[in-house]
Amino acid sequence: MNEESLKALLQSVQQGSCTPEKALRQLKDLPYENLEFARLDHHRALRTGQGEVIFCQGKQPEHIIKILKHLGSKENNVLATRLEPQAAAIILDHFPKAHYDQPARCLLLHPLDEPTIPGKILVMTAGTADLPVAQEAWLTARYMGHDVDTLFDVGVAGIHRLLEQRELMDQAEVIIVVAGMEGALASVVGGLVEQPVIAVPTSVGYGAHFQGLAALLSMLNSCASGVGVVNIDNGFGAASLASAIVRRIHREN
Amino acid sequence: MNEESLKALLQSVQQGSCTPEKALRQLKDLPYENLEFARLDHHRALRTGQGEVIFCQGKQPEHIIKILKHLGSKENNVLATRLEPQAAAIILDHFPKAHYDQPARCLLLHPLDEPTIPGKILVMTAGTADLPVAQEAWLTARYMGHDVDTLFDVGVAGIHRLLEQRELMDQAEVIIVVAGMEGALASVVGGLVEQPVIAVPTSVGYGAHFQGLAALLSMLNSCASGVGVVNIDNGFGAASLASAIVRRIHREN
Amino acid sequence: MNEESLKALLQSVQQGSCTPEKALRQLKDLPYENLEFARLDHHRALRTGQGEVIFCQGKQPEHIIKILKHLGSKENNVLATRLEPQAAAIILDHFPKAHYDQPARCLLLHPLDEPTIPGKILVMTAGTADLPVAQEAWLTARYMGHDVDTLFDVGVAGIHRLLEQRELMDQAEVIIVVAGMEGALASVVGGLVEQPVIAVPTSVGYGAHFQGLAALLSMLNSCASGVGVVNIDNGFGAASLASAIVRRIHREN
Amino acid sequence: MNEESLKALLQSVQQGSCTPEKALRQLKDLPYENLEFARLDHHRALRTGQGEVIFCQGKQPEHIIKILKHLGSKENNVLATRLEPQAAAIILDHFPKAHYDQPARCLLLHPLDEPTIPGKILVMTAGTADLPVAQEAWLTARYMGHDVDTLFDVGVAGIHRLLEQRELMDQAEVIIVVAGMEGALASVVGGLVEQPVIAVPTSVGYGAHFQGLAALLSMLNSCASGVGVVNIDNGFGAASLASAIVRRIHREN
Amino acid sequence: MNEESLKALLQSVQQGSCTPEKALRQLKDLPYENLEFARLDHHRALRTGQGEVIFCQGKQPEHIIKILKHLGSKENNVLATRLEPQAAAIILDHFPKAHYDQPARCLLLHPLDEPTIPGKILVMTAGTADLPVAQEAWLTARYMGHDVDTLFDVGVAGIHRLLEQRELMDQAEVIIVVAGMEGALASVVGGLVEQPVIAVPTSVGYGAHFQGLAALLSMLNSCASGVGVVNIDNGFGAASLASAIVRRIHREN
Amino acid sequence: MNEESLKALLQSVQQGSCTPEKALRQLKDLPYENLEFARLDHHRALRTGQGEVIFCQGKQPEHIIKILKHLGSKENNVLATRLEPQAAAIILDHFPKAHYDQPARCLLLHPLDEPTIPGKILVMTAGTADLPVAQEAWLTARYMGHDVDTLFDVGVAGIHRLLEQRELMDQAEVIIVVAGMEGALASVVGGLVEQPVIAVPTSVGYGAHFQGLAALLSMLNSCASGVGVVNIDNGFGAASLASAIVRRIHREN
Amino acid sequence: MNEESLKALLQSVQQGSCTPEKALRQLKDLPYENLEFARLDHHRALRTGQGEVIFCQGKQPEHIIKILKHLGSKENNVLATRLEPQAAAIILDHFPKAHYDQPARCLLLHPLDEPTIPGKILVMTAGTADLPVAQEAWLTARYMGHDVDTLFDVGVAGIHRLLEQRELMDQAEVIIVVAGMEGALASVVGGLVEQPVIAVPTSVGYGAHFQGLAALLSMLNSCASGVGVVNIDNGFGAASLASAIVRRIHREN
Amino acid sequence: MNEESLKALLQSVQQGSCTPEKALRQLKDLPYENLEFARLDHHRALRTGQGEVIFCQGKQPEHIIKILKHLGSKENNVLATRLEPQAAAIILDHFPKAHYDQPARCLLLHPLDEPTIPGKILVMTAGTADLPVAQEAWLTARYMGHDVDTLFDVGVAGIHRLLEQRELMDQAEVIIVVAGMEGALASVVGGLVEQPVIAVPTSVGYGAHFQGLAALLSMLNSCASGVGVVNIDNGFGAASLASAIVRRIHREN
Repeated sequence: MNEESLKALLQSVQQGSCTPEKALRQLKDLPYENLEFARLDHHRALRTGQGEVIFCQGKQPEHIIKILKHLGSKENNVLATRLEPQAAAIILDHFPKAHYDQPARCLLLHPLDEPTIPGKILVMTAGTADLPVAQEAWLTARYMGHDVDTLFDVGVAGIHRLLEQRELMDQAEVIIVVAGMEGALASVVGGLVEQPVIAVPTSVGYGAHFQGLAALLSMLNSCASGVGVVNIDNGFGAASLASAIVRRIHREN
Repeated sequence: MNEESLKALLQSVQQGSCTPEKALRQLKDLPYENLEFARLDHHRALRTGQGEVIFCQGKQPEHIIKILKHLGSKENNVLATRLEPQAAAIILDHFPKAHYDQPARCLLLHPLDEPTIPGKILVMTAGTADLPVAQEAWLTARYMGHDVDTLFDVGVAGIHRLLEQRELMDQAEVIIVVAGMEGALASVVGGLVEQPVIAVPTSVGYGAHFQGLAALLSMLNSCASGVGVVNIDNGFGAASLASAIVRRIHREN
Repeated sequence: MNEESLKALLQSVQQGSCTPEKALRQLKDLPYENLEFARLDHHRALRTGQGEVIFCQGKQPEHIIKILKHLGSKENNVLATRLEPQAAAIILDHFPKAHYDQPARCLLLHPLDEPTIPGKILVMTAGTADLPVAQEAWLTARYMGHDVDTLFDVGVAGIHRLLEQRELMDQAEVIIVVAGMEGALASVVGGLVEQPVIAVPTSVGYGAHFQGLAALLSMLNSCASGVGVVNIDNGFGAASLASAIVRRIHREN
Repeated sequence: MNEESLKALLQSVQQGSCTPEKALRQLKDLPYENLEFARLDHHRALRTGQGEVIFCQGKQPEHIIKILKHLGSKENNVLATRLEPQAAAIILDHFPKAHYDQPARCLLLHPLDEPTIPGKILVMTAGTADLPVAQEAWLTARYMGHDVDTLFDVGVAGIHRLLEQRELMDQAEVIIVVAGMEGALASVVGGLVEQPVIAVPTSVGYGAHFQGLAALLSMLNSCASGVGVVNIDNGFGAASLASAIVRRIHREN
Repeated sequence: MNEESLKALLQSVQQGSCTPEKALRQLKDLPYENLEFARLDHHRALRTGQGEVIFCQGKQPEHIIKILKHLGSKENNVLATRLEPQAAAIILDHFPKAHYDQPARCLLLHPLDEPTIPGKILVMTAGTADLPVAQEAWLTARYMGHDVDTLFDVGVAGIHRLLEQRELMDQAEVIIVVAGMEGALASVVGGLVEQPVIAVPTSVGYGAHFQGLAALLSMLNSCASGVGVVNIDNGFGAASLASAIVRRIHREN
Repeated sequence: MNEESLKALLQSVQQGSCTPEKALRQLKDLPYENLEFARLDHHRALRTGQGEVIFCQGKQPEHIIKILKHLGSKENNVLATRLEPQAAAIILDHFPKAHYDQPARCLLLHPLDEPTIPGKILVMTAGTADLPVAQEAWLTARYMGHDVDTLFDVGVAGIHRLLEQRELMDQAEVIIVVAGMEGALASVVGGLVEQPVIAVPTSVGYGAHFQGLAALLSMLNSCASGVGVVNIDNGFGAASLASAIVRRIHREN
Repeated sequence: MNEESLKALLQSVQQGSCTPEKALRQLKDLPYENLEFARLDHHRALRTGQGEVIFCQGKQPEHIIKILKHLGSKENNVLATRLEPQAAAIILDHFPKAHYDQPARCLLLHPLDEPTIPGKILVMTAGTADLPVAQEAWLTARYMGHDVDTLFDVGVAGIHRLLEQRELMDQAEVIIVVAGMEGALASVVGGLVEQPVIAVPTSVGYGAHFQGLAALLSMLNSCASGVGVVNIDNGFGAASLASAIVRRIHREN
Repeated sequence: MNEESLKALLQSVQQGSCTPEKALRQLKDLPYENLEFARLDHHRALRTGQGEVIFCQGKQPEHIIKILKHLGSKENNVLATRLEPQAAAIILDHFPKAHYDQPARCLLLHPLDEPTIPGKILVMTAGTADLPVAQEAWLTARYMGHDVDTLFDVGVAGIHRLLEQRELMDQAEVIIVVAGMEGALASVVGGLVEQPVIAVPTSVGYGAHFQGLAALLSMLNSCASGVGVVNIDNGFGAASLASAIVRRIHREN
């Protein structure tokens, strides 16, 4: 509801084509649905360009089922993230056609469509143990309509594995770097490419890793400028940011 | 030095148009300059699309002067960040035409040119005390050739100040949100727009703010997806990332 | 035992209407009951206006049962908080009429009475995952005799969901804001209303949320003044403070 | 701008008594003043019941002077907090009638008026070193129109000093407890009274006090329920919350 | 092996009453037993006045059994601490006469003897949930031969429960204060008595308690001087220190 | 004011030898002096066996002067700790006979008397940089009437320096170990002696020492049982605890 | 691929003995194997002198099995670390001749060979609970071809147990000190010997140990210079560093 | 004093060639000098192979002067580290021939000798701001008799600057990597070479660098195995460890 549309609405009230009551309803009744325990924001797709994704952590299975039903009736597909296997089993009983990706802890109501937005996103990992987070990023980006390349296990302890993959990096619009331990891959990639780099610290490591804090601080202090960081293990957030950038690049003007 | 150019070089060696010694030099002598205490990476502009910026913290004035002289002889303008007033005074004696912006703690060898890259970057702050960091971001983005809008003091304690500025937000390609205290502005903006949002936590606050930690954690945990975070008070890093995104949007394909 | 009553007691000793021994007992024998492992403070209701609530964490079921029996014989109802399901099952065997609310992890010996104190408390949450903490706050406030409204899932990522609920906020005497992640809801609400706002950070979030630390620091640094913060996930504490305020507003003078 | 006033505005547009352009301006032009570097929220007094207070930390003296001039022309008095002595000296040159309280680091444009709101606020400190924070709380509450009692140096290491002051506590509507070191005073007072207690941890202590963290954690974990905590050294925030409570108690219904 | 005994040994070598080989053995063969995975320090009782206690955390049951057998053959009784129930069950199969105290997670090979050292130790707790730690302290002190009084659930939220127990405090030589949450009891007791006070923070609390950190910092910052602090939940350590003090008081000179 | 004296007072009221008003005053008027900004606890010497010591940190010089005057008129000597040199200079102008010990940051109104209490306290340091804290401990203990030995620079990196000083350790009733860096000296001494050991972590170290945190955690986790820890750099607190122990050992029974 | 070999390759291209295509392949095709989810770095043995070890934490059993098969076909033996018992059981089904060491959580495909590299590594522990970490270090060093001595349970609380083992220390080329709690053993050993000391903090301890943080900080702040620290519980890393040192000492020049 | 020499001493006592008194003195009088405030460990050179270096932080200039005089009379040269410029000025007045290196904050009594120990140590830095720490390492290693190469400003943001320096790395026996920010250089170097790598995190960085914590955690979690870490900014410690390794490699067997 920006200035233009507000003025138009007021003019239609002045001209009598819209009653004050109706205008009031329109101004007040923003398009969300109230399920008491949750308010579904159908409007978000218009506002931010992305449909609502269900963040399942801390939600009870029956609540997730109700939200899925309401969202599923209005959108083509729905993505649920941070869904633990036990809860997924309960939910799959109600949506037998849905697909659950256990390492990524994600559920999709329908199969993924082919990518609809031009431009590639590259998801890289430093090690094999970072795969679940990378998988969450891959699934989210694919769900949002993007074409996604992957490049796994190219950590800096064997830097030749990374350097020879220059071409794959060059083909991407945005690069998502998923890394645990000391998270140095983000800095090395950030120093090699001109594309925006999104760094995802993972909780992979032990001891003084402190559940991802070491990689997080490392990435925030990257000596390569132009690296944006998201929360620890937050593959979803990285893909959301990557999607916003790629959609910006490829929108029709 | 990608696969193509390597192949070309090898072929010229095979064909005798290039001696092995010359090829060796070319492979080895990557374009940087060695000042003993520093290695100037003239190659970075080609590689990442951004010229080298001097991060002055911890460097001695005489070193900064030498680096400025070497960089200044090869590029049109040079930006120096995190330069304390005392050191700036010494440096200005050697570069009387340079300009020092004290709140931003930045120095420019020459005046800023007009923006050369289409597309706007918007720099917002939650409060007046966040201005120095916003100024560093503004200067960096302008130095990199961008057109920059600003919107200051629109923190969430008076949310109407923010909501009426929707148009300014809509005109930007990327939005940089600079906020201290609880840093909530990043979440509110992130939930309102479809553009990529870059969040810069500032060390503004006291007590349990712990020099910016509160705002940093807040932004990393933003309930609005698609927010990329940079280091505390790092206006330069935010502008670098914003620049990478905008240049990606507006490059000629 | 204030100055007035002490003087009265001493006068009755002087006048012989009270022996020194009896006065001694009265001064010494403050009204609590000693169960060896616990000292039940029946006096607290007089002193602070609130009956003792059993904080079950770390207590063994048999101890909780004994305390419930002693308190239950003297008061109309008893509230037990932080009671895990396994312990609740054991206790329900001894008090079959009691009610256990699993999400809130609370047990009540008897059903809740109708509210007896005028004035409303509003409990808001930013997301659906904050519900258990909100439920603990709701139950505690209702147990203490208050009328409680609720408003769930109005987090700042979709700020229109919040702004249209102005009326519900205006009707409350005190507002409890329960929020995890970046906890920004407390600041936005604090900037909108004139009522006292009590903020409850929750441990909802992952990665750099550090079990609620992010939301806690965020709320302590709220740019909206006049927000009081309680411990992470402490719905009980928030309701206690809200109750003290509302009882203060509506006491007969 | 609630539903009622919005409807009225729309009706006046329908009836022709207000043009769409004028309505647009009214909807858009919320009462704040834009100084470029700051947006003064004159509307806040209506919205939250408290005038804007200038938080000076991180602001440059010239900015503070401009804000003071703009606010001073519309309100009877203005309070500036966290103002360092050097900046205060510059500002006093422009406002020679203003008063600067150095320990509290606060400046007032005009002398304090007599209290206008019934009901007392009590400000207590555990030690003498907590006085500056208590003074900030006292000044803020007085500036907001309240009657304030004080009780200093009653820390729990000599608990008899506290216990004999029961009467002063009983006379207050709200009690602000300012304490550093282990901050135990908040728990002891919270266990003694029925009034709402607001706890302010101070950075008084050394070593493992970590600039107030020890007292902050202590107060958040108070075994006395119903204690609301504000940021470390935040006397202003405590007074704001106390003011909101007392105004709630004593508003005319 | 002090200077005196060394001199005596050397003189006996000089006088021929002791061969160099024998002296060498004596100097080298300090009285401990090598079990390969552990070195039992039988000498400690002479050196520090306390027999070795088995700290079981991280040790495998078979190792604990071997150590118990070796120690049990040379001393009257043995105490094992931090022994989890599952491991205890395995061990009790080998030592059917041993007694395992589950809340305290301690095992004793033989029943406790009557106290042999004069002077009382008082163990206090703030709440009922602190009992397991208090029980570990009680058992340790009793095992070391001391007479121990207890006073439970006298936290500062109901300070009258504490104040009336002055006599019990006065009768002790040393007071151990066990408290979680904000740990304020240590400060209040420290301000009331002239005896040495040993404070044991417990991990009782939630949210911003951070597994005992809040109580630990609180006790280290006690405004009452002369309080010695031990590790979180370390009832054993507190009793050891108390024992050292009481044995010092009551040794024969 | 224990049970006995309360009963006696009440009996004297009953018998008419004391009026209720006089008894009231006695019960109410505990022996402290109210200076408005401070309440001097003359009673503490009776209650805890130690006179009040002025903790100067955060106090203004004029306040310290007033407190010194009031305390100085009733006691033989007064100790002020944590007094910075600038403040000390101001104070010495008012008390020209006082002595200020700059490394220890302590001031004494009168010269130290000879020790009056039997039994020795030993103050050890690991390094030379720990001397200021050790000096605070030494001065405090001497001020409280004790005989104090010292043993400096016996850190574990050269363990022979420590082992040969066994005799000095054996002669002490209590040992205070002052150590920064990794604070290992406390563990080694704790494993060698039967006396109570009080460990004082110092802020000596750099980098990952975090202002004394490393030494503090090290001492709290000492593998030698029976070590009591005080706050970082808290020589005063260590001496207070040592004094309480030694006075307990040497009181007449 | 150093300068020499690059020059030789280029010369063979010039001389026609190597085609550009073949040279390109050689330059590009560095010897690693791509399993999609992992890139096996067979080249590492040449580059760093150590074969790749599988870090199993976070890897799925099927992935580990595939990696073992690929690595096992090219090398004599393979070491897998941080392998949990459940995963080990699955893997042992596929490699029945492999050996799993449960305390060390390590798996070896084939039995250990006799040591092939001269020079001894000594692995010491402070306590019995540090054994699993020491065992990981022992196994890793043995797997890398070294001769390893052990010395367990020589913590500083009984320093004579350590001092008499001087000879064993003197015989080692490098000493690995594994210690939890306060980790003081590293400092004491570091002060006694001239050999390089590698310190491994363990997560043994409770309360304020914070999962190894206490021992880590302690070792980083060791007052004995020349101590290198590895991550908490990282026996593997310590052995790798020790191996690098010993191979350096005993390589043929 | 090992077993052999002890036996020899005892035999000489038995044979009368040494009196018990003399033996006692020899056993007791270990070679250190007692200056009361410090104990100079002349014995350390024999024990650990390194002469005592004066760590000046926290020491008063007059103490440093005394120590320098005592050490200077017995050794050829003395190194003092962490010496602030003001203190250095005072000390240089007493030792006019000494040399003070301000960036490194180190003082040498005499000029450095030529290297006496074969084998090179390489000191690398990621950036120019890491130079002071690298300089401390360089000076320490040279003082200890080693040959030291340097390689500055080869951080991973421009990885080609590093890769072309392979030869310099190959020539070193040990590599010291000094890096701030995210400290990724340690991992990249650790993955490239077979030599032992010693990582020194520096406090270079801002915001979420937390005075070196980010680099420290990063290095402790290096994905390249075999990296030993020392304290933040501890160039001295790194050089000490490097020296111990190189002396081990090049001792005569």
